[in-house]
Amino acid sequence: MKRQNVRTLSLIVCTFTYLLVGAAVFDALESDNEMSQRALVDKLRARLTDKYNISDRDYRVLEAIIVKSIPHKAGYQWKFSGAFYFCITVITTIGYGHSTPMTVGGKTFCMFYALAGIPLGLVMFQSIGERLNTFVAFILRHVKHCFGKNPEVTHMNLIMVASGCGMMVMASGAFVFHRIEGWELFDSLYYAFISLTTIGFGDFVALQKDGALQTQPQYVVFSLIFILFGLTVVSAAMNLLVLRFLTMNTEDERRDEVEARM
Amino acid sequence: MKRQNVRTLSLIVCTFTYLLVGAAVFDALESDNEMSQRALVDKLRARLTDKYNISDRDYRVLEAIIVKSIPHKAGYQWKFSGAFYFCITVITTIGYGHSTPMTVGGKTFCMFYALAGIPLGLVMFQSIGERLNTFVAFILRHVKHCFGKNPEVTHMNLIMVASGCGMMVMASGAFVFHRIEGWELFDSLYYAFISLTTIGFGDFVALQKDGALQTQPQYVVFSLIFILFGLTVVSAAMNLLVLRFLTMNTEDERRDEVEARM
Ligand SMILES: [K+]
Ligand SMILES: [K+]
Repeated sequence: MKRQNVRTLSLIVCTFTYLLVGAAVFDALESDNEMSQRALVDKLRARLTDKYNISDRDYRVLEAIIVKSIPHKAGYQWKFSGAFYFCITVITTIGYGHSTPMTVGGKTFCMFYALAGIPLGLVMFQSIGERLNTFVAFILRHVKHCFGKNPEVTHMNLIMVASGCGMMVMASGAFVFHRIEGWELFDSLYYAFISLTTIGFGDFVALQKDGALQTQPQYVVFSLIFILFGLTVVSAAMNLLVLRFLTMNTEDERRDEVEARM
Repeated sequence: MKRQNVRTLSLIVCTFTYLLVGAAVFDALESDNEMSQRALVDKLRARLTDKYNISDRDYRVLEAIIVKSIPHKAGYQWKFSGAFYFCITVITTIGYGHSTPMTVGGKTFCMFYALAGIPLGLVMFQSIGERLNTFVAFILRHVKHCFGKNPEVTHMNLIMVASGCGMMVMASGAFVFHRIEGWELFDSLYYAFISLTTIGFGDFVALQKDGALQTQPQYVVFSLIFILFGLTVVSAAMNLLVLRFLTMNTEDERRDEVEARM
């Protein structure tokens, strides 16, 4: 079998194994907590609906109201600062979902906006990431030279610097969110990580309390810069770590063609 | 200025302009609806809390209960099928957030899981995408040859096929979700699009009704295959459209080095 096919098949097997193992571990870690949470929620609900004698129909209305009113705590989600925040979550594919378009026009525009915006964002972040790496390599070469060492900068040196920077950005972001949002430090770190990997669960989302979108402009600016700068650093690391693997098949394909011609 | 720096700066300017324009359009499209939704929600809430005379403290408890109980409608989120679904949303970076780890152990494992899983998933999808493109090129060459045309397959041919396949996968997925979830066809299409771009807002999430995770195994399998196969087709398209832009700076950098040596 061709090397490219073997590689692709091995990757599929690895990924499925990884998914199976992950599912088993999450099952073991989270299932007990889910059961007890479920029991607690059911008990509290029964107690409250009994206390106030809320009808089933009204409970469903209440459910709808409460779900819809959660985004309102942030202030106006679609005034400029909120809409700008939303656009960033679209083109970076973070997609917290803390606020999503509700009108048909909004949803349609969102799809076209993502279609052009995601490739644009991807190319921009990779481009800045590559520039950062080149800049770091330049600085490292000079520093090594000054200390009288071999001034050659290895790929490993760059990976170390990018990972170090990434961790520092996450840690400092986490610290600020911990102070302003009142989350526990561990949860802030989890938020920073889930954001900068562009997973964006939306279980923790910055700027969603006390009308922060309108009342705390400096914090809005900080949060947006955190995401944009953080993603740049992550892109620099991905540029070093992953990009060459992405083009492996294509390169093998080209080599095969050249060999076939000879 | 060096060509790589000019390119990166232009990309930054383009992206920020794109974000500003997007924010303005979303503001125009969504703000009115947000205002009227807000007013409606506030009115309904006042009516219900008055009717049942619910205290502020109890209302906050009710709020917490309702928010926590929404994931329970899907069945058990952390039994194997649910946990497997969750793992897929992590390594693809879709991250719907329909269910997220609640324990410190679960969150910690989730971070390490994503750290290795995202690069693995990315490389796998790109690898399959490239194989798909090669396969399509092979078929196209033979088809063209049979019809007595010039058998050369252009990059544009492949882009057309990949985009066509992507649209077909989205449309057929949307149709099934429309039938099973009872969403409007437009909303199903929006769900398929937001999922396959890995934005994953989580405003619409498959398998979240009537205990589907445990009671509808065939639908579970369909939903997971839709995501995995859909992402493969999207990766094939991205492989053709974006990959060469991602390596532009690096290639220019190499050429500069070679020129400097001469
Ligand atoms: K996402
Ligand atoms: K998301």
